[in-house]
Parts: sequence; C-alpha cells; structure tokens
Amino acid sequence: HYYINNMHILLLVAHGSRREESNIEIESLSKKISTLEPKEFDKVMPAFLEFASPSIPEAIKECTEVGATKVTILPYFLSAGVHITRDIPNEIIEASEGSPGLEIKVANYFGSRDEIAQILLKTALDIK
Amino acid sequence: HYYINNMHILLLVAHGSRREESNIEIESLSKKISTLEPKEFDKVMPAFLEFASPSIPEAIKECTEVGATKVTILPYFLSAGVHITRDIPNEIIEASEGSPGLEIKVANYFGSRDEIAQILLKTALDIK
Repeated sequence: HYYINNMHILLLVAHGSRREESNIEIESLSKKISTLEPKEFDKVMPAFLEFASPSIPEAIKECTEVGATKVTILPYFLSAGVHITRDIPNEIIEASEGSPGLEIKVANYFGSRDEIAQILLKTALDIK
Repeated sequence: HYYINNMHILLLVAHGSRREESNIEIESLSKKISTLEPKEFDKVMPAFLEFASPSIPEAIKECTEVGATKVTILPYFLSAGVHITRDIPNEIIEASEGSPGLEIKVANYFGSRDEIAQILLKTALDIK
C-alpha cells in the first residue's frame, strides 16, 4: 500500500442490468482497461446508473475516501439518450456536492466514437 | 433500380429511445456502415426493439419485400442482458415464421468485441 499524489480515478459508468452477468461484464471491462496500464489514471472503477452498485454518488464517495483528487467519468452508453443528457449529469451534481475538493470531468459517451461503424462491420462478418 | 441476386441485408438492431435524436443517431450509424461499402451486404438497415420503428419483425418483412434472401441481425448492445438473451431471439422467431424462405443469421452483440477497452481508454483521454 503506497500513497499516490494527485490520484486520478477513471469511473466507467454503465447502465446496469437486472441480470447479474451483465454487471460482471462491466466489472471485467473495467479491469481490462486497468490492464492497458493507462499512465493518466491510477485506478479504474465501475459505477452503475441502475440495478447494480456502486451508484455514481457511491463510487465518487469511495474515490475521495481512497484519496483521489481527480475523477474522470466515462459513460459507457451507445447513444445520447436521457441517461446521458439528464440522469448522469444530475447524479454527478449530487455527488460533487458531497465531495467539494474533487475535480470531476466527464468524457464523451462511448457511442460518439468514429471507430464504431468499422467495428460493427467486423462484428457482422465474424459469424462462423 | 436493379435486381440483386441473393440479396443480403444487414440489420443493425438497437434498443431504441424515447428521445428521437437517439434513434436518428442509429439511422446515421446504419448509413455510415453502408458508406464503408461492405461487399458482403447489399443494404444496411436499422431496426429497433422499443420506442422506434421499424421493429425487428417489420424490418424483416421489408427485407423480404425488397427481395432479400439473407438477413444478418447485428445487435448493437453493450452487454448480454435480457434483450440479447431473450427479447431479440423471440422477435426473430416471430419474424422468421412470416418469412419462411429467408435465411436469418445473428451476429454477436457489439459489446463482446475485444477492441472496446482500448476505444474506451481513448474516449477517456479525449477530453479537451
């Protein structure tokens, strides 16, 4: 256990599912991002909007407890629906009020990436 | 207008949203896949599980009407929740009963792709 100066945590925010296997997929994905050893982030954690924990406010509270000074919220959503435009911003506002010293940034949602069309085409051609 | 032998249509199946802009994003993505000019597919069309049309059965009916003999269903979902394990298969069974001559294949869901962790990390680092 060692002390990290200016700890920056990446929070992978997913919708969450009633189906526990789906939530475990998100936890695995969060670990997979960690194994890419991003030098900008000291830690990668999952958080969920519904049906699973931690919620965004719970995760942000945990970030401050482990000593984070910066959190980047990464919304793992495919389109800019109400979760992106309303729910996630509202939860971040709620959470930030409880952690006034924490710098919180929000990345673009995943579905906005240009690479997606190409990967979808690969997926469609990958049928055995 | 010309006749295509053994027409193969790619059906990009998304959840669908109450927010019309999200559904338009899916239509744009479907067009973007078309512009990649995949030689395996003669046409790319969107379909939605909820909140938008066409539904999967409506889209499959349209596929047969325009002369398709093969359809590949490409589920644009991030995790294997109930939509992937239950709802989409059920809709395909329903739709295929109305189109007995049509060969329908289902691709893996998008969220199963290995490239996603890397793209998520890029997304997180793309904040200005």
